[in-house]
Amino acid sequence: MDGLGDKPILDLDGRTPLEAARTPHFDELATRGACGIMDVVEPGMPVGSDIAHLLIFGYTREDYPGRGPLEALGVGMELQPGDVALRGNLANIDQGMNIIDRRAGRRIPEAGEIITILNNMVEESGGIEGVKVEFRHSTEQRVACVLRGPGISHCISDTNPNRDYVPVAECKPLDDSPEARKTARVINNLTKKIYESLKDNPINKQRKAKGQPQVNCILTHGAGMIQSVPSFQEKFHVRAACVTGNGVIRGVCRYLGINVMPCPGATGTINTDLEAKIETLLQSLQKVDIGILHIKATDSSGHDNKPFQKKEFLENIDSIVGHGLVSGVDWEDTCAVITADHSTPCENADHSGDPVPVLIVGKNIIHDEVRSLGERSCAGGYLGRISSHSLMNMILNRLGRQKKFGA
Amino acid sequence: MDGLGDKPILDLDGRTPLEAARTPHFDELATRGACGIMDVVEPGMPVGSDIAHLLIFGYTREDYPGRGPLEALGVGMELQPGDVALRGNLANIDQGMNIIDRRAGRRIPEAGEIITILNNMVEESGGIEGVKVEFRHSTEQRVACVLRGPGISHCISDTNPNRDYVPVAECKPLDDSPEARKTARVINNLTKKIYESLKDNPINKQRKAKGQPQVNCILTHGAGMIQSVPSFQEKFHVRAACVTGNGVIRGVCRYLGINVMPCPGATGTINTDLEAKIETLLQSLQKVDIGILHIKATDSSGHDNKPFQKKEFLENIDSIVGHGLVSGVDWEDTCAVITADHSTPCENADHSGDPVPVLIVGKNIIHDEVRSLGERSCAGGYLGRISSHSLMNMILNRLGRQKKFGA
Repeated sequence: MDGLGDKPILDLDGRTPLEAARTPHFDELATRGACGIMDVVEPGMPVGSDIAHLLIFGYTREDYPGRGPLEALGVGMELQPGDVALRGNLANIDQGMNIIDRRAGRRIPEAGEIITILNNMVEESGGIEGVKVEFRHSTEQRVACVLRGPGISHCISDTNPNRDYVPVAECKPLDDSPEARKTARVINNLTKKIYESLKDNPINKQRKAKGQPQVNCILTHGAGMIQSVPSFQEKFHVRAACVTGNGVIRGVCRYLGINVMPCPGATGTINTDLEAKIETLLQSLQKVDIGILHIKATDSSGHDNKPFQKKEFLENIDSIVGHGLVSGVDWEDTCAVITADHSTPCENADHSGDPVPVLIVGKNIIHDEVRSLGERSCAGGYLGRISSHSLMNMILNRLGRQKKFGA
Repeated sequence: MDGLGDKPILDLDGRTPLEAARTPHFDELATRGACGIMDVVEPGMPVGSDIAHLLIFGYTREDYPGRGPLEALGVGMELQPGDVALRGNLANIDQGMNIIDRRAGRRIPEAGEIITILNNMVEESGGIEGVKVEFRHSTEQRVACVLRGPGISHCISDTNPNRDYVPVAECKPLDDSPEARKTARVINNLTKKIYESLKDNPINKQRKAKGQPQVNCILTHGAGMIQSVPSFQEKFHVRAACVTGNGVIRGVCRYLGINVMPCPGATGTINTDLEAKIETLLQSLQKVDIGILHIKATDSSGHDNKPFQKKEFLENIDSIVGHGLVSGVDWEDTCAVITADHSTPCENADHSGDPVPVLIVGKNIIHDEVRSLGERSCAGGYLGRISSHSLMNMILNRLGRQKKFGA
């Protein structure tokens, strides 16, 4: 559950959303299992969902390719060694390159059409300095962008200043290499071409008539270059599958060669089809050793500072996913782990460096006195305070798939 | 609280001094906060106060420049890159260079005068092999010594054998470099010159008449060379200030660019002016992000194996500093950490490798079931067992000043 961990909330009588939520199925699993708290990077260090998932999947921070490549993989783009990938936001700027709305109103039904126009524009111009550019739409204003060509680098700054009413940031090289200087020039040139190409487009005339913000810019950030990592199966000698509605987690899975199960109802929002997700997960367990179920909206509720929404969504998860686990899993030969990639306390409205609860349950596991899934209750459990670095080892150990160290 | 951690003491009914002490204010903070125990280096590893403070301030053991430079900085000397700094003890030796009293009776009111004589002596002789030598008096028999000149090294052994009735140890190079050989020669030569310069001095004749030990030697140890570390502000992007009566901690602070607040009553002894210290701390919080209050005599009581003194001093700290924290801090936007640099159990009369209690308290922190500040009570708290390495991250996380890792 993304961003599960939280802090005491006055309106919930000093409990966290997870502590306040009625979660009989998770509590049943806590009673049968071993609990603890987990630092995803290290105590006190906040972490993004992308790298957090790499870490809880047993990879290291050195394996992180940057956000851009994971986004691009998440929307289904193919990446080759040497490609530079970035995230982009469709945005509205004025002719002086000042940002009016860095998300162009968020809802852009014409986004797919706009992306086609831009891809055609770059292709017809034969690329920029020999660099091919391809965009793909993700969700709302979000796009992924891949640069392919000789002599390019991901060591460039963002053009998205993450604020409105300031100029589009100039893309700058972050090191002295000719590759970084060239790539920065390409991005700055691209930004101008996009504006020229879209400013008088009929789509924007129609949007103007409807009082909607113009879409005439792509603000970039998170440039990265794919690197070669061993797949999950190569690394751990187990097959894994994932159910998720979130693009970044899909990208992480594609990066690691983890199969993403089709699940149309998985939206990554509070309205995600939890029944379809748990059903897809349970089906996947027929074919793979490790099934991963990712739920996004716990994190979104934290970002939006909506503790009651977070609590109610957790109750929903418990009654559908928790119930599915308790009743649908063959506990004779299955072990389950319930945890999070990081804390997103409502108070912070952002990720924090606080540890997350972790619960491991399975046949003959050493169970402790913990009777409920919660930040505080888990802290008193048998597992103590562990690092995400150990999680995959602990899972493989439960599965009897862990190689002995020494003889 | 320096050396706070202790062990069960029979005369205290099997409690530690901290457990036996009546500390209602600390207990109040423990009730409101999250507790744990902390390993300063790693479990079972004793540590000196100097490096311990570097570690709890978020630096690494690689950043440790040796004790000499921290002592020299602590008494206000200016160090330049390439300087070698040492600690020294004024001592009494016989003409055969055997140590009669390695502290020359500890109380040396003429210490300042003696240091001036020695500084003049070295200056008039134009240094030793081109190396300038400067001494400065610290407290009691303690002095700091700085060598400045071409081709010197801190890789030399101590001349202080830390015992009486043995010869002054010869200073030896600890590696094969010409620099280490030269520096060892300088120190051995200096030791002889000091004896020649002081043996017939009127000060010693007067001391002899009063039956006091002669002061005719400086025994050196802890040679080190300053290294370039990022300042606390550069490293963590927060401003810090420290209140301390202790020279080494002052040296650590100067080394890290942490402002040491003037506080005349802070003596580093059991008679330190705790009221002045907490008042100075609270004032400092108007100007800086992190205020540090260091109290030395908890450690000294452990070194002297005085459990009752340690207990009573802790009660004193609680009633003045603890009360000042509880009532004088704006808890809406302040978080406090109470911990130690290491354990100094009375039984050991020295530092031990036992963990220290740690307490973090602030608005909306996940508080646990711990109701008192103590070695055992804290071990059951929410924080579990942490490393000093994480402490600054956890503080920055509480302050919302921690940068997210990943996106």
